[in-house]
Amino acid sequence: MEETANTNAKWKVKAFDIVFKADSFYGKLFDAVLLIVIFLSVLAVVLESVAEIRFKYGIYFLWAEWIFTGFFLIEYIFRIVIVKYSWHYIKSFFGIVDLLSILPSILAFFFVGAQSLMIIRSLRLIRVFRVFKLTQYLGEASQLSDALLASRKKITLFIGTVLILVSILGAVMYLIEPPESGFTNIPKGIYWSIVTLTTVGYGDIAPITPIGQMIASLVMILGYGIIAVPTGIVTSELNKSRYESMNISCPHCQAKNHSTDALFCYKCGKKLQSD
Amino acid sequence: MEETANTNAKWKVKAFDIVFKADSFYGKLFDAVLLIVIFLSVLAVVLESVAEIRFKYGIYFLWAEWIFTGFFLIEYIFRIVIVKYSWHYIKSFFGIVDLLSILPSILAFFFVGAQSLMIIRSLRLIRVFRVFKLTQYLGEASQLSDALLASRKKITLFIGTVLILVSILGAVMYLIEPPESGFTNIPKGIYWSIVTLTTVGYGDIAPITPIGQMIASLVMILGYGIIAVPTGIVTSELNKSRYESMNISCPHCQAKNHSTDALFCYKCGKKLQSD
Amino acid sequence: MEETANTNAKWKVKAFDIVFKADSFYGKLFDAVLLIVIFLSVLAVVLESVAEIRFKYGIYFLWAEWIFTGFFLIEYIFRIVIVKYSWHYIKSFFGIVDLLSILPSILAFFFVGAQSLMIIRSLRLIRVFRVFKLTQYLGEASQLSDALLASRKKITLFIGTVLILVSILGAVMYLIEPPESGFTNIPKGIYWSIVTLTTVGYGDIAPITPIGQMIASLVMILGYGIIAVPTGIVTSELNKSRYESMNISCPHCQAKNHSTDALFCYKCGKKLQSD
Amino acid sequence: MEETANTNAKWKVKAFDIVFKADSFYGKLFDAVLLIVIFLSVLAVVLESVAEIRFKYGIYFLWAEWIFTGFFLIEYIFRIVIVKYSWHYIKSFFGIVDLLSILPSILAFFFVGAQSLMIIRSLRLIRVFRVFKLTQYLGEASQLSDALLASRKKITLFIGTVLILVSILGAVMYLIEPPESGFTNIPKGIYWSIVTLTTVGYGDIAPITPIGQMIASLVMILGYGIIAVPTGIVTSELNKSRYESMNISCPHCQAKNHSTDALFCYKCGKKLQSD
Repeated sequence: MEETANTNAKWKVKAFDIVFKADSFYGKLFDAVLLIVIFLSVLAVVLESVAEIRFKYGIYFLWAEWIFTGFFLIEYIFRIVIVKYSWHYIKSFFGIVDLLSILPSILAFFFVGAQSLMIIRSLRLIRVFRVFKLTQYLGEASQLSDALLASRKKITLFIGTVLILVSILGAVMYLIEPPESGFTNIPKGIYWSIVTLTTVGYGDIAPITPIGQMIASLVMILGYGIIAVPTGIVTSELNKSRYESMNISCPHCQAKNHSTDALFCYKCGKKLQSD
Repeated sequence: MEETANTNAKWKVKAFDIVFKADSFYGKLFDAVLLIVIFLSVLAVVLESVAEIRFKYGIYFLWAEWIFTGFFLIEYIFRIVIVKYSWHYIKSFFGIVDLLSILPSILAFFFVGAQSLMIIRSLRLIRVFRVFKLTQYLGEASQLSDALLASRKKITLFIGTVLILVSILGAVMYLIEPPESGFTNIPKGIYWSIVTLTTVGYGDIAPITPIGQMIASLVMILGYGIIAVPTGIVTSELNKSRYESMNISCPHCQAKNHSTDALFCYKCGKKLQSD
Repeated sequence: MEETANTNAKWKVKAFDIVFKADSFYGKLFDAVLLIVIFLSVLAVVLESVAEIRFKYGIYFLWAEWIFTGFFLIEYIFRIVIVKYSWHYIKSFFGIVDLLSILPSILAFFFVGAQSLMIIRSLRLIRVFRVFKLTQYLGEASQLSDALLASRKKITLFIGTVLILVSILGAVMYLIEPPESGFTNIPKGIYWSIVTLTTVGYGDIAPITPIGQMIASLVMILGYGIIAVPTGIVTSELNKSRYESMNISCPHCQAKNHSTDALFCYKCGKKLQSD
Repeated sequence: MEETANTNAKWKVKAFDIVFKADSFYGKLFDAVLLIVIFLSVLAVVLESVAEIRFKYGIYFLWAEWIFTGFFLIEYIFRIVIVKYSWHYIKSFFGIVDLLSILPSILAFFFVGAQSLMIIRSLRLIRVFRVFKLTQYLGEASQLSDALLASRKKITLFIGTVLILVSILGAVMYLIEPPESGFTNIPKGIYWSIVTLTTVGYGDIAPITPIGQMIASLVMILGYGIIAVPTGIVTSELNKSRYESMNISCPHCQAKNHSTDALFCYKCGKKLQSD
């Protein structure tokens, strides 16, 4: 459900159009400025974490942090005020993200390091897709998420199988390898199995015994083979959704496989919709 | 073949429905409790392997181990008693897994470390797919395994070629690289080839000579290229099985694989729909 | 727009055919010689960077560098002279690349190390595709770039999501892991996230705490899963473009995307073939 | 061209059927024994390279080596004698492989380490596909190689682009990174680029400067994206070959998309071949 303006006051309608929508010139300008501020605030958090920069410019970051937090707080309250169903906005995905991007600054009073949580502000950058022809991107996103949703069960099955496999492999490697090679307990073994099966391969834990290396080789070839499975599933679903969109049948001759923008049947030449 | 209840006694039928099936409320409850117990027993094995935890809570794990083993033993005997064809259950996949999840505790008397084999209990977690709408998942699983089965020969051919390639590469690198870089014998070379070709890349063995690094680069580009092959095979099979599943069979000669807009059977030439 | 010869003088037309085209014998010969010279000049830059070779044969490389630069400079001026619209050539992709492959030698007077920029000459090797049946390769290239262009939005969406994810992961790991494991600041954490998510896995930064390794495992499985997404997108587009290329356009309304067995246009309802 | 027996002598025909074919019982037996001997000889080469095993059982390996070489030599001469066109066999792929699997033992007299080249014998294992239903595997292999052949130009284009990209990246990293991080010359930089772009990621060379890590991150995301390209190409070709095999058109109504085993047109019901 889209948010709607609180129609009691005229200025609220206008403010709503600027803050919540990106159709008018000022709406786009507001979103562009907001995105730049969000990006700068994220950049500040990232740079502040670098010791050399913090030591040199620490005081500026402290100021910047409070200005950004103040700006976001005002924006958050303003959004609550001008929206019709305040509670609906607060509960929405963007409402929660907007709140979460203010909280860490306040938490930083009590817990050292909490300001790193401000990185959560980067989630606000998702708004970027709204500025540049939102609908198109949403269409593409829904196509992608449809494909992922349709392959939900296959992927659950696949991940479930992988997790069971990985636990057994981790335990076997823990039994075979000496502690010197890093397999000091089963969780480490499971961690290694995942690192290997996904072909990441840090090398912080690696088998040193011949039998361990033999099993590792099998795991890798296996991993190489099953990397094909999720790819196959997603590709197949993306293809399928393409076919299905073509599956309206003609009311006159029952011919199928019409393309989505077809007005007339390609077989009998009659109109597809009786309108 | 599905297991069936030993119909001589009424309580056995009811017990069978609860223990072996997941349709009734108590059947689902039993499976849910069982899954939690299995998960806890697997977790206990994993955690016990961590030295710090074992030293602190070792005694509790010993107790937990015997309680879990006792529970699984009783469950196993109970399953044998209530099922109609006991031998058929014992020989089945789940029968063997159920037995294997009890054995390691007994083996642990004779061999130190054998309790790590209890991780095999995690295989029992496959039952989870039975609780949440089994049939759907089985359908998806059979679709996946059909695609893998259909590409069996291509994959055998692919793995055979890769294994021969990997042996030759391993020997070549053993000849070229000095022992300092880790290529101390041909098995190590083969291990390195597999680690590289599958793009895992631990870095525990890595070429140091220019000519060795040149060959390694070629292997990587090759590996990058052939990663496409299994993915292509599986995806293509998944697409194919989709086409085949859309096909109706001829009412006259039972021929399959008709295209969706076929009016006549391609084999016997008769009409497909009797209308 | 293709370059055309400056038609005022006859020798210019002939020189243009040799230098800019690859149809005649001398045109092919010129391109072949040019490619060999380019390849040698690139090889010289690469070899000169190796300290042992530079110390031994440094003086020869200096000579070679100036001969190559002189040759390319003469070629560049010659191209400007014989082409009809000099400015159009200078602004074109190949014109800029040709200029860039001369500049670094001159820059090397002022900045030490600038001669390494001469590697940019390797871009000139793209001309190789012109010698061996250009048009075919261009067709294939356009097919590939069409597929990439068509999936532009999906890929932007995908990379945008990945970048936001990676920033958050980097900050979380920076908070969790001690500095000893290499997570000394958020940029390092983001770098690690990218190294892990793309399954590269150098191992220069790797989690050492159990909770860090657990999160890393989740990231890897996630990365393993989402590696399927871009592959699925590109494959699906390549398939799509194949379908579209099979389609005939309607002689009455020019509508495209007719299925291969269409008899009537799906848009205007008229017959497709006038038979 | 298949080899044919030298028909002058009857025993030669029989010997030919046994040695070169795998249809009769003795033909299969010969191939099975040969494969086991080849596998054992390869295993001997691999195991001999392990220092501990060589020191202990060195003398046995020396004996085994000479027995295997003698056996292969006799087999090779025997093959030349019984085949009709000896020269044709000698020049064929298997003829060269058969010769190459004898040569290293003789070379080992003059060059230390040459016996490791005996690993080339593993190429003889390709014969395995002849024993187990050859024709089927050949069909699958030709399907795979057809798909690879059809995507030849796209893959050449792709690899050419990647090689140019990798040279430029290698030079850039050599300029940016200090020698301590391993980027001591441009070839090392190119090696690193390939290791990174293919997602192998040994970690023996890894950027340490922030700007180097930033470029590395870009390379990885790029590599992650372009891994999709070869997969997309191969998958798309495998799909295409499937479609093309369905592309016989009916001589009566011109309907297309008949399946490969169709006898009658699915549209008009008439015979497809006029026989």
